[in-house]
Parts: sequence; C-alpha cells; structure tokens
Amino acid sequence: LSLCNMSDPWQECMDFCVEVTKRAGKVICEALQKDITVMQKSSPVDLVTETDQKVERLIISSIKEKYPTHSFIGEESVAAGAPSVLTDNPTWIIDPIDGTTNFVHRFPFVSVSIGFTVKKEIEFGIVYSCVEDKMYTARKGKGAFCNGDPIKVSGQEDISKSLVLTEMGFKEDPEHFKRMLANIRTILTIPVHGIRSPGSTAVNMCLVACGSADAYYHMGIHCWDMAGGAAVVSEAGGVIVDISGESLWNERSTFSKTVTNIGGGQSGKKTLPLPAYFLKHF
Amino acid sequence: LSLCNMSDPWQECMDFCVEVTKRAGKVICEALQKDITVMQKSSPVDLVTETDQKVERLIISSIKEKYPTHSFIGEESVAAGAPSVLTDNPTWIIDPIDGTTNFVHRFPFVSVSIGFTVKKEIEFGIVYSCVEDKMYTARKGKGAFCNGDPIKVSGQEDISKSLVLTEMGFKEDPEHFKRMLANIRTILTIPVHGIRSPGSTAVNMCLVACGSADAYYHMGIHCWDMAGGAAVVSEAGGVIVDISGESLWNERSTFSKTVTNIGGGQSGKKTLPLPAYFLKHF
Ligand SMILES: [Mg+2]
Ligand SMILES: [Mg+2]
Repeated sequence: LSLCNMSDPWQECMDFCVEVTKRAGKVICEALQKDITVMQKSSPVDLVTETDQKVERLIISSIKEKYPTHSFIGEESVAAGAPSVLTDNPTWIIDPIDGTTNFVHRFPFVSVSIGFTVKKEIEFGIVYSCVEDKMYTARKGKGAFCNGDPIKVSGQEDISKSLVLTEMGFKEDPEHFKRMLANIRTILTIPVHGIRSPGSTAVNMCLVACGSADAYYHMGIHCWDMAGGAAVVSEAGGVIVDISGESLWNERSTFSKTVTNIGGGQSGKKTLPLPAYFLKHF
Repeated sequence: LSLCNMSDPWQECMDFCVEVTKRAGKVICEALQKDITVMQKSSPVDLVTETDQKVERLIISSIKEKYPTHSFIGEESVAAGAPSVLTDNPTWIIDPIDGTTNFVHRFPFVSVSIGFTVKKEIEFGIVYSCVEDKMYTARKGKGAFCNGDPIKVSGQEDISKSLVLTEMGFKEDPEHFKRMLANIRTILTIPVHGIRSPGSTAVNMCLVACGSADAYYHMGIHCWDMAGGAAVVSEAGGVIVDISGESLWNERSTFSKTVTNIGGGQSGKKTLPLPAYFLKHF
C-alpha cells in the first residue's frame, strides 16, 4: 500500500476529495429540500450565499485537517478577500456550488467542483452533480469516469453536426451583452444542431466529457469554474482552448495559462479575457 | 371497483397509459445504449426516424388492442400522412420521442408524451422523461405528480425574478429566425434571472410544473408536443397562454384553441401561429 502511495502520491487526496465532495453535495441537496416558504421568506441571494459559504467552509476545514500544509483557492474565500494565487504547493481549487442561479431556482443542475494542482499542474478533478447524483472523476493520465464508468467525448469533428452548450444571462456591461448575443447568433447560423443551456459550467464540461454534447462555448470564466471540469474533459479526450485555438490545457496538463489570468498574475484579472471553447476538435 | 370505474371511467385508460409509456421509454433507453459505432455508422436522421416510428407503432398498437374504438393523433402517423383532426371520440395525442435532437446526441432530456382527450377536453396527460426515469402524471382535477409525488409550479409572479426556459435552434425561415433571436434578447433584457434550454418541450413544461423553472416560452408548437405536458402544467397550478394572454387551456380544460390550429381546422396549420407562454402568472 505504501509502495502504491509512493508511485501515486495524490491518489489518496483524490479518494478523500470524492468523500468530501459527496458530503458537500448532501448539504446542498438538504438545502434544496427546505420548505418552500423558508426559501421564499429569505432573500434568494442571502440563502445562496449562506449555503455557498457553509459548503466551502465544510470542504476547506475537512481538507485542512487532513492536509494542513496544502493551499486553497475557493470562490467564496476569494470573494471575501483571500488571494487567488496559484503556487507550486499542492492546491485545492474549489467551487462549492457551481450553478448558483440553478440552486436558487432548484433547476436540477447544481454541482460541487474541485481541481487539485501540484507544481501548477492539475493532478485530478472532481465534479459532483448532486441532484442527479453523478460523480465525475478524473486522475491525470488515468481517464475520466462518471459514477465509476469510463466516459469519453463524442468524437464529433464537424461543428455543423454538433450540439453546443452555452450560457445566457443578462450582463450589466452593454458591450459584453451585445457580444454574447452576437455569439449566440453566430453559433446558431453555422448552423449547429442546437444550443442547450443547463446553467452550470462544471456540469456543461462533464456533459461534453460524456459525449452528451459536442462542444461548450463560454465567455468569461473563473479558475474555480473550470478546474474540476477541465480534468474531466481532458481525460475524456477533449480539449480546452481559447478563441485563438491555443490550448488552455496542454500536453503536460499545466494550468499556467489560466493561472496567468486568474491568479492575480500579469493581468490581475480573475476571469479569462477571452471566450473559451470546449470541444474535441473545433 | 366497477363503481369506481363508473365514477371515473378514464382512470383505467390513464393507468394503462403509464404502463405503455414506461415500455416505450425502455425502448428509447435501449436505443440510446446502442454501441457508439452503430450510432455513428447510420445517419442520425435515419436512426431517430426508425426509433420514433418504432415507438409510436408500439404505443398505438398496444392501445388499439385494448381500446379498438379510440382515435389517435401521433406525430409520426401525421408525418406519414394520417389526418390530425380532433373529434369528440376518446383520442390519444402522442409524441413518441419529444426531443429528437437530444435523442440523437444522447443529451439526457428525452421523453414520451401522451395526452388523452374526450369530447375535445384533456382528461389526463403523461410525460415520461426516460433517461431521468421521471414519470409525470396528471388527471384532470386531481393534481400533478412526478413519480407519485405531488408537484406544483413555483408561484413566482415577478418575471424579473424568474428562470425562463426556451428553445434555440436554427430556423430556415429568416423571418422566424430573426424573431427568435429578438425574443431571446427581449427575455434577457427584462432582465430575467437566466435562460435555460433543456431541449424537450414536454420536459420543459414538466420543469415548470415542478417549480424548477418559472416560465417556458416557445415559438411554434404542435399538439403532440404539448398535450401531455399541458395537463401536467395545468394540474400543477400553471397556465398556458398565447402572447395575447389568452388561455390555451381554459377552466374546463378544453383543447379547442390548440385544435383549431393543429387539427386541420380554420387555419389548417399544424403549429400554433403565435408564440405560447407557459407561466403561472405572466
Ligand atoms: Mg459557485
Ligand atoms: Mg417527436
């Protein structure tokens, strides 16, 4: 066993991550079960913040107890002022609830997403779509799985035969909003087979990883939105690229490009400056 | 028992419908399990037509055997030239696979939808989302259920706090396409909380019925797309109206308006001429 751990020192972390993610998903599902009147009395924004923070605290405290020297980048911690900097130290990149609008409305795509990096490379990613009870797991070089079954991308190479996922929401920035609508028109007029919008970035990436959709187009993304799903897509045979076609997930699975943009590095921005495509062959 | 049947003569039909719908769902799920190479070898269009027709034949032959005097309006039968006329006779309105593009891509929202009318009034509706294994049932005046649990619409009365479902696909008709894009922009700039697109009309209606989304906007619809779901939404406390606000499902649950448009009646059209909204309070 110790030999096994020596040959793959991060497998234990991954197993623990699955366990913690399951517990987090249970807390989310319990919150979703709350009496509808409770849901309506409190402001949806308050409720979601409360659960988001509660779940992130649960995840980080559980991991810290077991791995006290590890680092963390969590959506809620960063929102509360914690730095979002990736170092060589083993780092857990956490989105406690991906799909907060879905959560508020009980739309059934809500997930916990965790990516784990060492020396700035993703070692594994976990996405737990808790209402569906689907646990997506991917260990670098070992493939991607949904509830233990191997998954792979569709292999569709023709965008005009593709089902494309994207997200649509109102944007305060008029230029961003205009561009988003223009992008939807562009995708539709290729034309593609259809556009679907489940409303959770991590779930979207996993749907592509399963071959249930052929591509996912997203405009503006945080590292915690994609860290878990990036491992799943990549290990399922997909690629993650920006609009220039440059990979956001290269052969060595480095996370450097994303980090440049999200880690308070060169640009200091928390979102990628460019739309990102998720597709095997685009 | 016979007294029970006398007091509700259509309950037996509904129970039988659930049984037949389950069997149809099993055939669909089996088709989805087919080896990926088989899926890719045959044209997706051929494959879907084959399964659509197979499932509709299964449904109609099963029902005909038990109820030889009843009438049928089935998507595939109408496509093959059968008349789409609603009479006072007990009539089964069938969409064997709602969400054909989803089916081809294995996107997990695919349903069997059946509505049952007597004297042009819907008596019950069944929608079986077979990949999710969710059986939605509604008997006139007796409420709506998902897998036996009662469901109800969200009760959200403020569109700006709503999660809205709609569908986006390329349209050959440039005017229709332009209008669809304009409608998406209009919905987003209300602004709403978000737009989601699962890709199955019947499932969308059931998601509204469950309160997982607050409204569903659809531009152009067939009677088989909505007959089953209309019963579910209505019995869950929702309303179905066209853009003038006129109900497509009045207090007596008549189906007359839809029928006017789909039954080869006044307009002879198979789709509603106006967009239809599905919302409790719009
Ligand atoms: Mg989040
Ligand atoms: Mg159909």
